[in-house]
Amino acid sequence: MAIRGAPLLGVAAAMGLALGVSKISTRNKQIFIKKTKEIAKEIADSRPTARNLFWALERMLELLDKNKDLPLEKQQQEFKREAEKILKEDIKTNKILAQKGATLVPNQASILTHCNAGALATGGYGTALGVIRMAKEQGKKIQVFANETRPLLQGARLTAWELQKYDIPVTVIPDSAAGYLIKSKKIDLIIVGADRIARNGDVANKIGTYSVAVLAKENQVPFYVAAPFSTIDLNIPTGEKIKIEERNQSEVLSFTDMQIAPSGVPAWNPAFDITPNYLVTSIITEKGIKSPPYEQSLKY
Amino acid sequence: MAIRGAPLLGVAAAMGLALGVSKISTRNKQIFIKKTKEIAKEIADSRPTARNLFWALERMLELLDKNKDLPLEKQQQEFKREAEKILKEDIKTNKILAQKGATLVPNQASILTHCNAGALATGGYGTALGVIRMAKEQGKKIQVFANETRPLLQGARLTAWELQKYDIPVTVIPDSAAGYLIKSKKIDLIIVGADRIARNGDVANKIGTYSVAVLAKENQVPFYVAAPFSTIDLNIPTGEKIKIEERNQSEVLSFTDMQIAPSGVPAWNPAFDITPNYLVTSIITEKGIKSPPYEQSLKY
Repeated sequence: MAIRGAPLLGVAAAMGLALGVSKISTRNKQIFIKKTKEIAKEIADSRPTARNLFWALERMLELLDKNKDLPLEKQQQEFKREAEKILKEDIKTNKILAQKGATLVPNQASILTHCNAGALATGGYGTALGVIRMAKEQGKKIQVFANETRPLLQGARLTAWELQKYDIPVTVIPDSAAGYLIKSKKIDLIIVGADRIARNGDVANKIGTYSVAVLAKENQVPFYVAAPFSTIDLNIPTGEKIKIEERNQSEVLSFTDMQIAPSGVPAWNPAFDITPNYLVTSIITEKGIKSPPYEQSLKY
Repeated sequence: MAIRGAPLLGVAAAMGLALGVSKISTRNKQIFIKKTKEIAKEIADSRPTARNLFWALERMLELLDKNKDLPLEKQQQEFKREAEKILKEDIKTNKILAQKGATLVPNQASILTHCNAGALATGGYGTALGVIRMAKEQGKKIQVFANETRPLLQGARLTAWELQKYDIPVTVIPDSAAGYLIKSKKIDLIIVGADRIARNGDVANKIGTYSVAVLAKENQVPFYVAAPFSTIDLNIPTGEKIKIEERNQSEVLSFTDMQIAPSGVPAWNPAFDITPNYLVTSIITEKGIKSPPYEQSLKY
């Protein structure tokens, strides 16, 4: 959890693999391949849900075949080059999807977001917050409500910090106040990032995203997901097949080292949930704003 | 906030008024009436949302007319007697509504609750938790999921503590995990208390209640509200007329004295929200389980 945010996990996985590969000292090509795959496996095992992590590793491992005739030293350099390319592409991709997404943001919009899908969760620009930044850069006057996002408070800590930095007015709310906020008609649109999107448009994202999406539907507020194509997993038919990471109970039962709940009481701490496709108004990608049915629109 | 929970606020208001009245030293009946009303006003101004607070004060102030011919010392005793009666009645009323409500709880039920509507929020038995306790006392095997209830964490602190004491298995979840929990089909029913119920059955309760009710409807899980008639305000036609207390931003922006959000970022901290009547499956009262249309059923 030193690194978080699906796109940033992708970048970090690529960088980590390149670093690991650079330290392989063998001159034997078979051992080089084996060790490279072992390092990739170790990185893959660190977090189960974010698609970008696996996407980046798969892309990096393609180098083994692509460059198999190159000397190993040269191959190691190619790993580094590819990781740097993934980082640059992530920033570029974010900016493109942000531009497309910003067309959905009216001037004077009040926007609700959940968790952090900003520069701190990506290579450096942001997905959901990228769209918001871009709208601001285009001169739109906007205000943002940030769900604090228990248990780790990425909204209160990271999203609030980023938006303050971008000079965008932000108000933190308890996650449980999102419903009342949306119902009070103060919200024009909701935008969140994604950790993995299934072929049918079901979205895995930070726990609480599903609740916000249901509240959006109940109150007829558009619910947008912003994510690069590297988050989309066309091999997974529906969200039910996405593995949800369950994290340590102590994140809920304590605050830093201060105990909240009585000793002996357990907590349930899923890190993500699944928002079914019918709750998602559009998915904003670098290839355009995708609309239902996603089974069709996410193909290209 | 040393005292919380609508029914307990009612008891405490009555006790507080009786205590205040006992200290009035005048022998002049007009001054006695004036001072009594001043004390009641001061208590009424402490919290705006809980109906029971005002209900108890109104009931206590009726003594002024009822006992107007008694000597003042005797009147002061009657205030004390009436406050004690309100406390006893609250416990009795809770147990009656708990018995009626327990008929809605199947054996092996998984129950979700929000905030704390237990002994710690009432005269000593509980409304929503009263129903749960009663089901357990009747030998039913049940398990409870408790929303932690940000910002003040009444669920993690108080509900978890009470249920552990009653030997009822309880699991704390972040408020934002309630949606995923309900959707995962692990929840048979949801039960919460209330701070004020309008004539049409709209319910004011702890912030986040509305979100849970919407999630219940989306997933076809029954959503019950347990409250004594002293919580029902027949003078208020709809929830829109209920005044919602907004509390200090620091409850959201800090945890005890630890800062969470960056300096200068504001928070929105409504203490309650309104759940519209169409989301409420039934209202469990001491006079029976009330069903829609509440405009009719809450009359008696």
